[in-house]
Amino acid sequence: VEELVSVRARGLRSSAIRDLLRLAEDPAVRSLAGGLPAAEGIPVERLRTALERALAVPGRYGPTGLQYGPTEGLAPLRDLVAARLRAQGAPADATDTIITTGSQQGLDLLGRALCDPGDVVVVEDPSYLGARQALSAAGARLHAVTADDGGLRTDVLAEHLAAGLRPKAVYVVANFQNPAGTTLALERRTDLADLADRYGFVVIEDDPYGALRFAGSSLPPVRSLGDRVVTLGTASKLLAPGLRVGWLTAPAALVAPLVRLKQAADLHTATLPQLVVHDCLGDEAWLAGHVAGLRTLYAARADALCGALRLRLGERLAWREPQGGMFVWGRLRADRDADVLLPISLRHGVAFVPGSAFTDDPAGRACLRLSFASLTPPELVDAVERLAESMEDLGDARPAGS
Amino acid sequence: VEELVSVRARGLRSSAIRDLLRLAEDPAVRSLAGGLPAAEGIPVERLRTALERALAVPGRYGPTGLQYGPTEGLAPLRDLVAARLRAQGAPADATDTIITTGSQQGLDLLGRALCDPGDVVVVEDPSYLGARQALSAAGARLHAVTADDGGLRTDVLAEHLAAGLRPKAVYVVANFQNPAGTTLALERRTDLADLADRYGFVVIEDDPYGALRFAGSSLPPVRSLGDRVVTLGTASKLLAPGLRVGWLTAPAALVAPLVRLKQAADLHTATLPQLVVHDCLGDEAWLAGHVAGLRTLYAARADALCGALRLRLGERLAWREPQGGMFVWGRLRADRDADVLLPISLRHGVAFVPGSAFTDDPAGRACLRLSFASLTPPELVDAVERLAESMEDLGDARPAGS
Repeated sequence: VEELVSVRARGLRSSAIRDLLRLAEDPAVRSLAGGLPAAEGIPVERLRTALERALAVPGRYGPTGLQYGPTEGLAPLRDLVAARLRAQGAPADATDTIITTGSQQGLDLLGRALCDPGDVVVVEDPSYLGARQALSAAGARLHAVTADDGGLRTDVLAEHLAAGLRPKAVYVVANFQNPAGTTLALERRTDLADLADRYGFVVIEDDPYGALRFAGSSLPPVRSLGDRVVTLGTASKLLAPGLRVGWLTAPAALVAPLVRLKQAADLHTATLPQLVVHDCLGDEAWLAGHVAGLRTLYAARADALCGALRLRLGERLAWREPQGGMFVWGRLRADRDADVLLPISLRHGVAFVPGSAFTDDPAGRACLRLSFASLTPPELVDAVERLAESMEDLGDARPAGS
Repeated sequence: VEELVSVRARGLRSSAIRDLLRLAEDPAVRSLAGGLPAAEGIPVERLRTALERALAVPGRYGPTGLQYGPTEGLAPLRDLVAARLRAQGAPADATDTIITTGSQQGLDLLGRALCDPGDVVVVEDPSYLGARQALSAAGARLHAVTADDGGLRTDVLAEHLAAGLRPKAVYVVANFQNPAGTTLALERRTDLADLADRYGFVVIEDDPYGALRFAGSSLPPVRSLGDRVVTLGTASKLLAPGLRVGWLTAPAALVAPLVRLKQAADLHTATLPQLVVHDCLGDEAWLAGHVAGLRTLYAARADALCGALRLRLGERLAWREPQGGMFVWGRLRADRDADVLLPISLRHGVAFVPGSAFTDDPAGRACLRLSFASLTPPELVDAVERLAESMEDLGDARPAGS
């Protein structure tokens, strides 16, 4: 049967890192590797109430939450998602909005709606692994453009465009990027929207973490600055990832192709979770308190991680202090190789994701992504202690390309 | 933005029938068009109990049903699905089994795992619209092989193969096919498994309706007869479609590519619904009673529909008496055109799906699919009355190709 596997499916590489990180599931390992939100941030009791109510929502052919639903998603949730985006200053309407099976599905559908094999999509360097996978699976050629503390270098992008690059889309995580933790600067947001108009590409603005800001001020969505922007969101970091409820709001011309692709992909997103998300996100008073609690929780964890890093690894690692989200992006000084460090760290009982998972640039192998989301402050301190010990064992391994 | 839409996405046709069938959502319309299971067959109270228990299942980072989960699906559910397939005589193991977001996602993943653009997949003529869409979206060229009362004509398939046809896969709904209601005969199941071995293709055996048999005897799964078979299943018709929980058991060499594609597609299927399905399907005593109830319910509805058809439409329509599933496939006598009938029927307050949705053969336009699943017996009698009235208005419109 092996010989029947499509060229496309063969092309999706099995990640050696992913295999190695299965070891991080061992309860003895302190994992800084996951992208999991804090267990303490999942509002279990509020979700229980929402589930009870959801089962009682009637439909023509049985409870709405248990029967087949529309491919586009349940209308009240589409309304609510659009209203929330409008409240951020971006144009949005229920008819432009599709509920997806997590925002990961939004990326998969966008890849297939926009890209024929060989089409170019620009990503930030480094960029979210799941987006790279979904876009590659659709046949897109990824073109990574360098990023710095202010996010994607739109000036560098402009040079590439002027030199002839013609992407179908540019993918950015504009707030608290995964993995780098950076936020796209305001003037770059404007530049990006302008470049999209001038060169005729779509901006894919993925915003899983925007609400999790615990320092600094929010910036307007790229979608508020231009017409060629798809904005993706998710309930995964606000409520619970296991619900698999995400959404996207797209330029009108993309909606019908995306809906056709989604119908072929999974008919529709599970209806009961959609009702639960509608109940919780529509409860503004409760949500405001809940989100404030998440910010406090993540701020304390980011503080604990960065404090421990300063104490124990200040001479071996450089990093940015995060203003939100879930991640700290570190760079090993003297170009040590994080791919070599990982198995050593696992032996010391701590895990992280090496930079090579997020970039093809060999220099990225000196980097590592540390999540502060799922461990408590004492556990974070302990994890950094183990990381420090493992670095002492590292010796002077350097990335091949550095 | 319109000019950015991929060739692939443009190729997915927007179905005029689907647009027309939106009119069937009008509560005044008796819909024989849907593929929805009976509202009365959804075990709401049992699902409520399962949901309460699911919320209490602990995990390392919060409740298992609310946190991210493995791409392959939760291990206990994979075990259970494999055990159920083994109980039907087919080899199955948790490691060969993947939980999918409805069996529709299984079709999407298989299309992408097996097909590069232009690869051939054989489908029954007529065949399930959702499979045709998913496989086409993956770039497959569909090659329809004629079917009769015993399902796919494997002798005709053998002729095409001998003449040089080299499909990557053959897709069948072996039990109570959608739309034709037929069951693949035992000797044809053996033939199909043998042809798969001889010519090196995969059989995709989609089995959403197998448990809903109310007459005759069950036949062994094709997977019990050969090594090159993927079997798909779903909780949609046994429990509730809104959960979007399906599964597949595949030859070992396909599992890793399918998991990589699923990770890019939606990371994993919603965890809470997986726990709910595991709870209900693992409760054997309850399940046996529930399935017996479903069979009685659908038997009564099939009887009511066929009885009314005999009384009111015996001279205008030919059809097979179903032994299970949800559908009756009718053929208008004198080659009347079901595409022309549909808008007339909608004006009379009844809907069905015209045969043209399931086949490219112009002769299929004389056919229609009638679901007996979602209406009560009195509603079914009324629907047939309306259908009879609309046929009186039809005149002698015939399909273009007949």
